Amino acid sequence: MKPTGNRQVAFQGERGAFSEGALLRFFGSSVNPMPCRSFSEVFEKVEVNQLEFGVVPIENSIEGSVNQVYDLLLEHDLLVCGEVVEKIVHCLVVNPSTELKSIKTVCSHPQALAQCRDFWDSLGWDAVSTFDTAGAVRQLKETRNLEGAAIASEQAAEIHKMKILARNIADNPENFTRFLVLSKTDVPFRTDTKTSIIFSARHIPGALYDVLKEFAEGEINLTKIESRPTKKEPWKYNFYLDFEGHREDPKCLEVLKKLERKCTMVKLLGSYSKADAREFHPTQS
Amino acid sequence: MKPTGNRQVAFQGERGAFSEGALLRFFGSSVNPMPCRSFSEVFEKVEVNQLEFGVVPIENSIEGSVNQVYDLLLEHDLLVCGEVVEKIVHCLVVNPSTELKSIKTVCSHPQALAQCRDFWDSLGWDAVSTFDTAGAVRQLKETRNLEGAAIASEQAAEIHKMKILARNIADNPENFTRFLVLSKTDVPFRTDTKTSIIFSARHIPGALYDVLKEFAEGEINLTKIESRPTKKEPWKYNFYLDFEGHREDPKCLEVLKKLERKCTMVKLLGSYSKADAREFHPTQS
Repeated sequence: MKPTGNRQVAFQGERGAFSEGALLRFFGSSVNPMPCRSFSEVFEKVEVNQLEFGVVPIENSIEGSVNQVYDLLLEHDLLVCGEVVEKIVHCLVVNPSTELKSIKTVCSHPQALAQCRDFWDSLGWDAVSTFDTAGAVRQLKETRNLEGAAIASEQAAEIHKMKILARNIADNPENFTRFLVLSKTDVPFRTDTKTSIIFSARHIPGALYDVLKEFAEGEINLTKIESRPTKKEPWKYNFYLDFEGHREDPKCLEVLKKLERKCTMVKLLGSYSKADAREFHPTQS
Repeated sequence: MKPTGNRQVAFQGERGAFSEGALLRFFGSSVNPMPCRSFSEVFEKVEVNQLEFGVVPIENSIEGSVNQVYDLLLEHDLLVCGEVVEKIVHCLVVNPSTELKSIKTVCSHPQALAQCRDFWDSLGWDAVSTFDTAGAVRQLKETRNLEGAAIASEQAAEIHKMKILARNIADNPENFTRFLVLSKTDVPFRTDTKTSIIFSARHIPGALYDVLKEFAEGEINLTKIESRPTKKEPWKYNFYLDFEGHREDPKCLEVLKKLERKCTMVKLLGSYSKADAREFHPTQS
């Protein structure tokens, strides 16, 4: 087996991004997180074998689905081989000599700013949008801005040796992001699995109901359903389903066969251990 | 009936936004479009009776659902009383003396930039994000920038007396946005209607299937299904359904009654004429 220290895992964002935290918790701290500028780049680097794995956010418990990642799952041929749920703890990060009373502006990714609005709005600060949360910390440091604060992860503060003035400042502290682990190689059969598929329905009324009926009759639990525009024809959708079980379980296999006949397209994204099953043993290579 | 010239209709964005184009097509050119800074502001102004109607985008044929608007529909008590579909024609807008060969940067809303990437990327321009498309045109004019271009609607160019160098520059020209018309007063019974509801399911596997079954058995066509996080408990969802028919049609009424018993929450958003039925007769006040 490869020494895990050589394992390179792609993520979108800068060092200290929440995605990096998720991948370190999934793979352990001995892997090399490789920052990418976009979700597309993560998919591309794994697809051309430049990197072995990629970790991308698929869903946040407050904001909902990450649409672009859903679309990329259809466009690329990668397997989902794991998932990890990361608690999003937004911290208020400043330069070491900055104090709370001297702050005038707060900078972060628009979504992080929105999630912490009650906090910074009540203090009368101006908000400045940045490309990502960890980048806001880096900028704050580089510009030696003593009147600014960033909203980012604890890791981003540590990496840039910055000070944390407050932790978990989000309006809704119950903030989790679910990430998918992508690869080109499959994970062997295991228990406590879920499976992700994409299917294309001829039209909504019958097709979606017909598919859900198969799962209901097969007594297979669905954990998530999402629809995305096909982009080929307005108001036609592809559906994304996550369900409990492995694609090779007899009852799942049975339902998947029926779907092949009923749908115009079925794409199997992968079967993988649920996020609460922590350990991970990727295929040896 | 009120003279329509006095009718004030809220939309998000600046004058020349695609939302403004949608509302003018829906209500006719004699209404007063009232720009708002955010979707929340549109909902609030209609809810407190400051403005009679609001028009908000709910779904784009390429990008998918506008999540924030879905969430606002749950949070506010407004009725959906109409829908309108607007073709999104992205134009390349410049100051009158600017020529194509002198352009170095292109500015617009990130989504518009992404939708026209093939166009500007092939010309080697840098992209600059702005808060909205029409705002990009205004900024270009105010700064007298002769090396910049904006991506925006034809109307934005007209309002600011700017020059259009190219029309429909999007990578995928089949680009439509569906808008909802919001009000506090209801629209009287009419034919060719659809109805929008939100319901809360105890858990996905049974609940969603149970609800779709009622529609399938009642022979009611669904036109859209969307899920959004409840924000109260991670990985629990509310579902949004659009279906053909009026809530007072006997068969719709029957299904809605069954849903009341099956779901923990059912919120009726409204019954309204489908977008292709062009004429509009709001209730007299």
